[in-house]
Amino acid sequence: MIDQRKLPNEEIYNTYRTPEEVAAAIKTMVIRGAPAIGVAGAFGMALAANNSQAKDREAFFAEMDLVAEMLISQRPTAVNLPWAVRRIQNFYRNQKDTNLLVLQNKILEEALRIFDEDVRMCRQMGENGAPLIEEGKTYLTHCNAGALATAGEGTALSLFYEAQRRGKKFKVIASETRPFLQGARLTAWELGKNGIDVTLVTDNMVGHLMRLGKIDGAVVGSDRIVANGDVANKIGTYGVAVLAKHHGIPLYVVAPSSTVDFDTTDGSKIPIEERPDEEVTAFFGTPSAPAGVKVFNPAFDVTPHELVEAIVTEKGIARAPYSQNLKKVLQR
Amino acid sequence: MIDQRKLPNEEIYNTYRTPEEVAAAIKTMVIRGAPAIGVAGAFGMALAANNSQAKDREAFFAEMDLVAEMLISQRPTAVNLPWAVRRIQNFYRNQKDTNLLVLQNKILEEALRIFDEDVRMCRQMGENGAPLIEEGKTYLTHCNAGALATAGEGTALSLFYEAQRRGKKFKVIASETRPFLQGARLTAWELGKNGIDVTLVTDNMVGHLMRLGKIDGAVVGSDRIVANGDVANKIGTYGVAVLAKHHGIPLYVVAPSSTVDFDTTDGSKIPIEERPDEEVTAFFGTPSAPAGVKVFNPAFDVTPHELVEAIVTEKGIARAPYSQNLKKVLQR
Repeated sequence: MIDQRKLPNEEIYNTYRTPEEVAAAIKTMVIRGAPAIGVAGAFGMALAANNSQAKDREAFFAEMDLVAEMLISQRPTAVNLPWAVRRIQNFYRNQKDTNLLVLQNKILEEALRIFDEDVRMCRQMGENGAPLIEEGKTYLTHCNAGALATAGEGTALSLFYEAQRRGKKFKVIASETRPFLQGARLTAWELGKNGIDVTLVTDNMVGHLMRLGKIDGAVVGSDRIVANGDVANKIGTYGVAVLAKHHGIPLYVVAPSSTVDFDTTDGSKIPIEERPDEEVTAFFGTPSAPAGVKVFNPAFDVTPHELVEAIVTEKGIARAPYSQNLKKVLQR
Repeated sequence: MIDQRKLPNEEIYNTYRTPEEVAAAIKTMVIRGAPAIGVAGAFGMALAANNSQAKDREAFFAEMDLVAEMLISQRPTAVNLPWAVRRIQNFYRNQKDTNLLVLQNKILEEALRIFDEDVRMCRQMGENGAPLIEEGKTYLTHCNAGALATAGEGTALSLFYEAQRRGKKFKVIASETRPFLQGARLTAWELGKNGIDVTLVTDNMVGHLMRLGKIDGAVVGSDRIVANGDVANKIGTYGVAVLAKHHGIPLYVVAPSSTVDFDTTDGSKIPIEERPDEEVTAFFGTPSAPAGVKVFNPAFDVTPHELVEAIVTEKGIARAPYSQNLKKVLQR
């Protein structure tokens, strides 16, 4: 994995050989982005299978099931992580093999399929959503929902990459996305590398830009979309959504079907991860706030569906009423 | 002056002996906060008078007038800076003395009066506004409109200090205020030192907190209030204002009469300062964004008067319609 905490100053690749190492990488955000941590979870399961010393199916399954819970518990909000890990669990439970070596290999193949599918889903989201990116317009994106957040070209950013391939000219505003600075460190880096016209602003400049008429649309990813269309995404997305609504600017959410959680009825039931104070009170080890100050550091917020203009998936675009149309689009 | 760039990690006091040094301190934000840079501008004029080698009134005035323009040009948005410098200019033009030593001393006295008046205005804003701070409630404040931004106890924060003296219990949320981190570095430090319950969040968490019902009101300062009640203040204030309106939360603006600019009809005519890219792309010298990325760094935004619940001044509280009531309150 590329160590995303070090970007853009250093491009360092880490190798992990155990599921515990993968779990720590997910927890500490070496890797982040809902689809990416899903794929990482699947590979964590494959590593567990590969490393297992179990002598029979039952012992092997028991061991794998423990690893599954351990992996899933690292980050509570994105549903892609449990989605991928549960898919591996369902996969091995449905295998008839008693030869554990065969089973281990099949699990690795399933993890690779999850990886490959994510790559294809990104490309497909880009194709479905690219028509929303209009010639000569400027789009805000918050956090990083790009190649660094997925196995492929990204969710939100896949629209930009595909629109670029289609020869469209447009501009992107990246909001820096405190506290982890995914917009500044990752999105600005990734879009710049790919030749897309990107301008960096702090999160609190978005309203001013909208008021000046300098933003025509907002495009974000998601960590969990629930049955009624409510969207959990990186902290600050809700503020962008309210501002977009106030200015009559469409907000597009882009996510693969693995992000959609039909078992949760509405956004109030999504668990919101709170992260360490130090993310807010220091930069690169230098304190930016007085020692001991109280901090609230939720990593995500929930945008109610009525602020969402459209949800772009690999299977098509859903629009309100989401409680009906999300299912319709995803069952295609 | 306390070097506000170094807070809260170091408490360093700088001594300046020329108006050019004061100008540089204003420009580089050693000192910031609309009332504080007004007072600093007045002392810059007093230093110019003190250092002058002019032989007669005309030469002295010509020299002082050049310094005045030089000082005013350092920061374009806050009106307190030109207000204080012009006041010194009007003061010396109206003096009959031909003895330059006497005139120099009188100019210093006028600068000291501006300082003293600012201290008293802060106290008076606190007294006028403290009733708006309700027992058991939680208030957001953005940027630093406290003792560090004025000669006295602050504008917005004076309400908290006075409410505390009156024995009220309440809580404050400080938004960190990128890019210069006045909320994290200054407000959290200043309120904490004074025993006020303060919690630090990043700017993009404000919407989420409001949606959770955890903010009951927002209290901010201002760099310029114009005739129709539109308010220029630190970048991000407008976003807070839109979010507050969306959630039915009152936004209070607190500023002395020196911040009110009746010569400007509406907010679209307020010059908005743009500051160096490095404020956005690095923290304490470490890059937080890819080298060479395009940046937009406006230091202020404008909140239209319809989003403002009340404007608290040292002369009383104005409410809509501001185009009538601001004048009424300030002419008391």
